Amino acid sequence: MIEDKIKELGYELPEAPKPLAAYIPAIKIDNLVFTSGQLPTVRGELKFTGKIGADLSEADGQRAAEISALNCLSAVKSVIGSLDQVDQIVKLTVYVNSADYFTNQPKVANGASELIGKIFGDKGKHVRSAVGVNELPMNAPLEIEMIVKVK
Amino acid sequence: MIEDKIKELGYELPEAPKPLAAYIPAIKIDNLVFTSGQLPTVRGELKFTGKIGADLSEADGQRAAEISALNCLSAVKSVIGSLDQVDQIVKLTVYVNSADYFTNQPKVANGASELIGKIFGDKGKHVRSAVGVNELPMNAPLEIEMIVKVK
Amino acid sequence: MIEDKIKELGYELPEAPKPLAAYIPAIKIDNLVFTSGQLPTVRGELKFTGKIGADLSEADGQRAAEISALNCLSAVKSVIGSLDQVDQIVKLTVYVNSADYFTNQPKVANGASELIGKIFGDKGKHVRSAVGVNELPMNAPLEIEMIVKVK
Repeated sequence: MIEDKIKELGYELPEAPKPLAAYIPAIKIDNLVFTSGQLPTVRGELKFTGKIGADLSEADGQRAAEISALNCLSAVKSVIGSLDQVDQIVKLTVYVNSADYFTNQPKVANGASELIGKIFGDKGKHVRSAVGVNELPMNAPLEIEMIVKVK
Repeated sequence: MIEDKIKELGYELPEAPKPLAAYIPAIKIDNLVFTSGQLPTVRGELKFTGKIGADLSEADGQRAAEISALNCLSAVKSVIGSLDQVDQIVKLTVYVNSADYFTNQPKVANGASELIGKIFGDKGKHVRSAVGVNELPMNAPLEIEMIVKVK
Repeated sequence: MIEDKIKELGYELPEAPKPLAAYIPAIKIDNLVFTSGQLPTVRGELKFTGKIGADLSEADGQRAAEISALNCLSAVKSVIGSLDQVDQIVKLTVYVNSADYFTNQPKVANGASELIGKIFGDKGKHVRSAVGVNELPMNAPLEIEMIVKVK
């Protein structure tokens, strides 16, 4: 049971995130689920704000990436009922709010990728893009979107 | 009829946008259509230029987002013949040319999401990522790409 | 034979790129292959670094885009065995590390799009988004991800 695994690892699957606007958290099209970009919010409030490499450390960024990844999983669950229906985590896109000269986006994104690996094992082996951006909604340190294949 | 609805709402579906380069405006793969990133051009000319939060207001950005969304729909139409063949708007990715400290990308992107909602109703309920970027082609204020499921 | 074509054009298909972190270079889901974002590395080392429009010229950027595109193809090959199994190049997303005021991302991205066109002909006609970003991993000048349909 995937949700038991999440708890065992010391994490909590949040309630499905509410969209900030005129869109939905996740959508299922045939056997793929696409999520909206998820910020590192806990119960609706950003847990971290600011730019990685200036306001926040890489370690903060990794923790923020874990939270965004869990919000993605929560969004996925909201449309498929149970994370046990996940057949494969397909792709993460990680947008990192980057201070000038901060070029270690992959390390920050590893916060998400490694947690996904611990939770899903081989089903968690995904492709990924990690890029820097100069600004994000509400000055969030990162935003993550996910594509998942379901059974 | 979706195109009648677009007119009723006071908008005009443009001619299919011409690509700026060595690629095509949209492609259909099985029952999904992917568009290229669309700028807020009208008859080939950018309707707005500059950064949201400095050169342009949020309201300008919302209007630009409407135009880019219509260009996406026009690109979709070019490969499926009629927008009545749209089964579901799946996803928007909205890249907002953001001045320093501008963090309201979701509000700008709502220009696109809300118009899609008015045009397509439930079939318009999509996922979305909205991120800031520091530069865009020809100093456009935003660029939007779309994924659509067709019947 | 696609690999012969690549050689004829004077290019070399690299070894499959190694991921920088906890993810994989490419994944096949039904008949689609998604790649991770690929940097312009040759045998694990970045061939170019810095921002287009400041440290690097557009021509440098186009050459970097060719290299990233080849790395994408190598990643695709790693999961489908042969590039002759490619039915259609579907989409490129090109993130360009952009100096202030550099707005010619499409021209840089053409380095990738035009090479794909030369290699694959009609099967190479893809959609594309090209956007500027302020920072990229290891100060790479660009990052490209690809979606491909296979036979």
